[in-house]
Amino acid sequence: MRQLSLLVLGAALAFALGLAPAAADEGMWTFDHFPSQAVATEYGIPIDQAWLDRVRLATIRLSNCTASYVSPDGLILTNHHCAEACLSEHSTPEKSLIEDGFLAARREDELRCGAQIADTLVAMEDVTAKVAAATLGLDERAANAKRKRTLTELESACEVASAKDHRTGALKCEHVSLYEGGQYFLYKYKRYDDVRLVFAPEEGIAAFGGDPDNFQFPRYCLDMTVLRAYENGKPAKTPNHLSIDFAGPKAGEPIFVSGHPGSTDRLLTVSELKSQRDLIIPNWLLRNSELRGRLIEFGESSPGAERISRDLLNGLENSIKVRRKQEDALLDDALLARKASEEAALRASVARDPKLRAAIGDPWADIDRSQIALRQLYLQYLFTENAGGFNSRLFRYARAIVRGAAERSKPDTERLPEFADAALPRITQSLGAPIPLYPELERLTLVFSLERMREWLGPDDPLVRLLLVKESPQELAARLIAASKLGDPKVRLALWNGGAAAVDASDDPMLALAKAVDPYARAVRKRYENEVEAPVDSASEKIAHARFATLGTSVYPDATFTLRLNYGTVQGWVENGTPVEPFTHLGTAFARATDAYPFRMPDSWTRAKDRLDLSTPVNFTSNNDIVGGNSGSPVVNARGNIVGLAFDGNIHSISGSYWFDAAQNRMIAVHPAFIREALTKVYGASALLAELGAAP
Amino acid sequence: MRQLSLLVLGAALAFALGLAPAAADEGMWTFDHFPSQAVATEYGIPIDQAWLDRVRLATIRLSNCTASYVSPDGLILTNHHCAEACLSEHSTPEKSLIEDGFLAARREDELRCGAQIADTLVAMEDVTAKVAAATLGLDERAANAKRKRTLTELESACEVASAKDHRTGALKCEHVSLYEGGQYFLYKYKRYDDVRLVFAPEEGIAAFGGDPDNFQFPRYCLDMTVLRAYENGKPAKTPNHLSIDFAGPKAGEPIFVSGHPGSTDRLLTVSELKSQRDLIIPNWLLRNSELRGRLIEFGESSPGAERISRDLLNGLENSIKVRRKQEDALLDDALLARKASEEAALRASVARDPKLRAAIGDPWADIDRSQIALRQLYLQYLFTENAGGFNSRLFRYARAIVRGAAERSKPDTERLPEFADAALPRITQSLGAPIPLYPELERLTLVFSLERMREWLGPDDPLVRLLLVKESPQELAARLIAASKLGDPKVRLALWNGGAAAVDASDDPMLALAKAVDPYARAVRKRYENEVEAPVDSASEKIAHARFATLGTSVYPDATFTLRLNYGTVQGWVENGTPVEPFTHLGTAFARATDAYPFRMPDSWTRAKDRLDLSTPVNFTSNNDIVGGNSGSPVVNARGNIVGLAFDGNIHSISGSYWFDAAQNRMIAVHPAFIREALTKVYGASALLAELGAAP
Repeated sequence: MRQLSLLVLGAALAFALGLAPAAADEGMWTFDHFPSQAVATEYGIPIDQAWLDRVRLATIRLSNCTASYVSPDGLILTNHHCAEACLSEHSTPEKSLIEDGFLAARREDELRCGAQIADTLVAMEDVTAKVAAATLGLDERAANAKRKRTLTELESACEVASAKDHRTGALKCEHVSLYEGGQYFLYKYKRYDDVRLVFAPEEGIAAFGGDPDNFQFPRYCLDMTVLRAYENGKPAKTPNHLSIDFAGPKAGEPIFVSGHPGSTDRLLTVSELKSQRDLIIPNWLLRNSELRGRLIEFGESSPGAERISRDLLNGLENSIKVRRKQEDALLDDALLARKASEEAALRASVARDPKLRAAIGDPWADIDRSQIALRQLYLQYLFTENAGGFNSRLFRYARAIVRGAAERSKPDTERLPEFADAALPRITQSLGAPIPLYPELERLTLVFSLERMREWLGPDDPLVRLLLVKESPQELAARLIAASKLGDPKVRLALWNGGAAAVDASDDPMLALAKAVDPYARAVRKRYENEVEAPVDSASEKIAHARFATLGTSVYPDATFTLRLNYGTVQGWVENGTPVEPFTHLGTAFARATDAYPFRMPDSWTRAKDRLDLSTPVNFTSNNDIVGGNSGSPVVNARGNIVGLAFDGNIHSISGSYWFDAAQNRMIAVHPAFIREALTKVYGASALLAELGAAP
Repeated sequence: MRQLSLLVLGAALAFALGLAPAAADEGMWTFDHFPSQAVATEYGIPIDQAWLDRVRLATIRLSNCTASYVSPDGLILTNHHCAEACLSEHSTPEKSLIEDGFLAARREDELRCGAQIADTLVAMEDVTAKVAAATLGLDERAANAKRKRTLTELESACEVASAKDHRTGALKCEHVSLYEGGQYFLYKYKRYDDVRLVFAPEEGIAAFGGDPDNFQFPRYCLDMTVLRAYENGKPAKTPNHLSIDFAGPKAGEPIFVSGHPGSTDRLLTVSELKSQRDLIIPNWLLRNSELRGRLIEFGESSPGAERISRDLLNGLENSIKVRRKQEDALLDDALLARKASEEAALRASVARDPKLRAAIGDPWADIDRSQIALRQLYLQYLFTENAGGFNSRLFRYARAIVRGAAERSKPDTERLPEFADAALPRITQSLGAPIPLYPELERLTLVFSLERMREWLGPDDPLVRLLLVKESPQELAARLIAASKLGDPKVRLALWNGGAAAVDASDDPMLALAKAVDPYARAVRKRYENEVEAPVDSASEKIAHARFATLGTSVYPDATFTLRLNYGTVQGWVENGTPVEPFTHLGTAFARATDAYPFRMPDSWTRAKDRLDLSTPVNFTSNNDIVGGNSGSPVVNARGNIVGLAFDGNIHSISGSYWFDAAQNRMIAVHPAFIREALTKVYGASALLAELGAAP
């Protein structure tokens, strides 16, 4: 609460509005602005540059999560749910690594995760001034185009330079917008694109309680997986890694979480929040609740169907719970009233400053207008450009190939940004990854999305008429899936490498669909960029300037799936008047187990029960300010050792998208003693234990 | 707009707030307060008592819709979608009357609809004073119980008296609460409980455009069915019936709609509307969108599965669209602001009147408190007492049998009201109706609802623990459905007639489940009645008194699925600046058809195309104020002849739950010329045409 009110109002104004500072460890801080002084004052813990560098260089950004290096040989600790796609990739309808778990007997048995990467942030460069200079004096549409082009140029130049720099070696350079466009950075990563699976427990213990328990606490999950980074076919050398302190933290102990919170919207304007509340989230929930139902019923048809759809369903159910609680937060009129009064206070401070007012005008009015345009364009944009009408992996491959061929014939800076030179290696990796593709599942998602496109755009929409006059969604999907060859990674890579000529020569019907959709999709994208994105970006920059002018940069930016560090202490909370203790223990997990999924203990655990210490702590909570993307984050103590593995938040943490509820927002982490107990007594993973430095 | 502002604010206040009266034919009027004078003034049409009596006595309340008598031999005209359950009842996985349509060659081929009834309102008795006298001086909980008991007594006495009255014969007597408890009436109906199917077209033309076109216009639906009331095994004598004027209405012609609008919430308080916006509708949409997905995927598994689930899916998709647009209306902050200012105006007028203020206190604050209780109790109430956790026809039968046995052992007035003597014949009819029951569909809905109960109540809820520790939802559902005999109407009736002894002696596992759930369900029902229902009913009565004191009864009550009459004119509207014409024609329907469901014309129509007059009007719109429940309503002209068959509203009509949008809310009706063209040239239904009085 303290920093939220500081952030937008300043302390004096906050008092005036009755928002008294509260003791809360809120904030998702960049490593270059971590409030070490506040931590020293509050907890007496010195966080110096060496500590920060060590933790930063051991923290990993996966494609979808956070992780950390935990041995000098590239060993990576993250969550089970972060590696579920990889487990699914190596499963078949007959045998599922999600269900059964996996332990590589030897290093040569470790299984490559086709689409995974491991990035470590080695440097950050502030390019705000360069971007500002490039867009100076341009109107919002021209500025939008020029900004993207400038950022692409900066990324490319950075990659070219690093490739020639033998001190760093080739780096991935990505631009980052902080404070909704108030600052632009280049973030430079050391990337490994060969990541392999070392160990995963069974889903039955990794996600004990399944979707019903997700975002709940007390909790009993061994939500861990061990991966390994490889370079040139050998385990990567990772001298920057963290040690695990298997004793774990004590109640009240200060702890730090390093990771990549995915996205928060704490700085959005009220009209942007209302677009989410009224349009974006309800539409998403309607469609995806239906998809959930289709996937569940599909899974009921056979054990094999259940296996191949499990990973998709788990991710979907997690997202549904997030979106549902986000909508609940936005439907809380008190929250919106607070946002409105904070916004009014900032607007008032602009009104009092003639120079600032002259410089930025009324960006809130610009955003209000953009949101009217958004409401008009949203469905078209969603179903065509965002491919909401074509929920199919084959279609996504087809679009990448079709658009890639068209875009790569242009100069780097004139392409759609996602096809800039810097982005191409990752596309090649994705197209070449040998991830199994199940036609029945493709059929399900594609029929679903075609039907919903027809529902929401209406049967008389031109694109709907183009596709669905002679064929029903079922017939169209069946024909495309039966005839397309894009399920084969070799075919995909050949088309990708062959460029426009190969695409033109192909008669693949899914490529034909992607070609047919493209003019509609590009047209609506152009309108969206001009009428929504450009005014929002331009106005948000101005609001950020107003905020900096009033409050400086002593505040933290919204989460952007870039590296952040926060602090807090191990603690529970009070739920409906009842205190919730911060630690759970193994004995209670067994007591709570039932005979049926998702509350059934795996056989390996039932068999091992007599050998286990049932007083072993299992999971714990803290008030660290995290959101989705932080999954897999190392929880470190004052000495910089790992004392937990973040994997979830409690149900109140979901409102963290919009504000930090100091009283109830809690992180949930796996306790390291649980990890040791499992690896020792259930899985007999002695080599892995040794590499993790666990005493025998 | 005019009457809405009159309703809550009074005209002077309305002007003060800038709500100028507008020309709109809003209102769902009871037949005893129809504004004939306003109609005479506005349209020069005299509506006298004879006209009102004739239309009232020819209008029918079906179990789910409205209909009208259209011949002296009990012939009934209503919508296809109102008879879909009956069509489904007579279908098999191999042959569907929904798909194929039906025409009885002779009267003896007419098919009985097992659960259908036909009620005609023959008398209305105001019992407000009796209810007020009975509850005088009681606190809100005692008043709630006494009110229910009094209404049960009044109903029973009315039925006993009518059975002895040879002028009326036995009547069904039902209490009706108008103006949220401002008035209580006994409505007395002549009921036929033997209703048979005479004619239905194929769904392909009845619901041309299916769910995508539902609530849309231009539209092309022959949404009609013909039924017949029977008495003692013979066609009922219905001298009160309406003639059809097959020429239909002209643009701008005044028309009247007689029917049973189901439910509106135009008089609710703001805090009640927010409970709908924040809790009830979002929860409903989430769960039922998932159910939609499960049903669709189930239907994909085989043509037979698709046939047996079609009726359920159609109803569900209709409800989803309604709920979705209701939520959109409530998310419109301008609408809620208008409601808030109307509420503030009424509260201010109470504050200015010391006597009124002393008499009613602050009922709005009472309702606010009740809504906090509602939010706490809602999920428990929904999943247990409302059986949201047990979505299964077998469970519903089981609960009726178990509760009926317990309740019938008590005196009439001490029972749960749904088991009062007056209600028992309808329960017997439902239990005895030979409606096919498909185990696979039962499995689907029951597993779904058990899973969601576990999700929303949480795995540690006592009822969830009771049911789902040894078995998964799948296992529990499979065991119950395999072993229960309640799919057999003879078994159900034997248990029902056998009462408590039969129930105690039965080992049917679904009965056992209903017994196990009952203590939980009754306990939460009692809390709900005391903490939500009692304060809401008591406070709503007081608000109604305040409204009467300010505005009199020159306004209309919210819809309650009781008989209403409204007026309007045939007209289109303006959509995004473009006028929408009020009539559609057959030629355009053919031009819009595709080769695939739900836009595929039935073969019978394609074959008949050359014989058809493509300029025949098909559907038309008007500004009559209707909502769900009005489906099947006769649209009558100034002479009291049928000139249309109401079957839908446009998308803007759904916000009619909360207010009447005079500019855009439109009814959609089948044109009688379309009916004649179809019966004559497509279906060759000459006997039916003759009975309808169509010239050859």
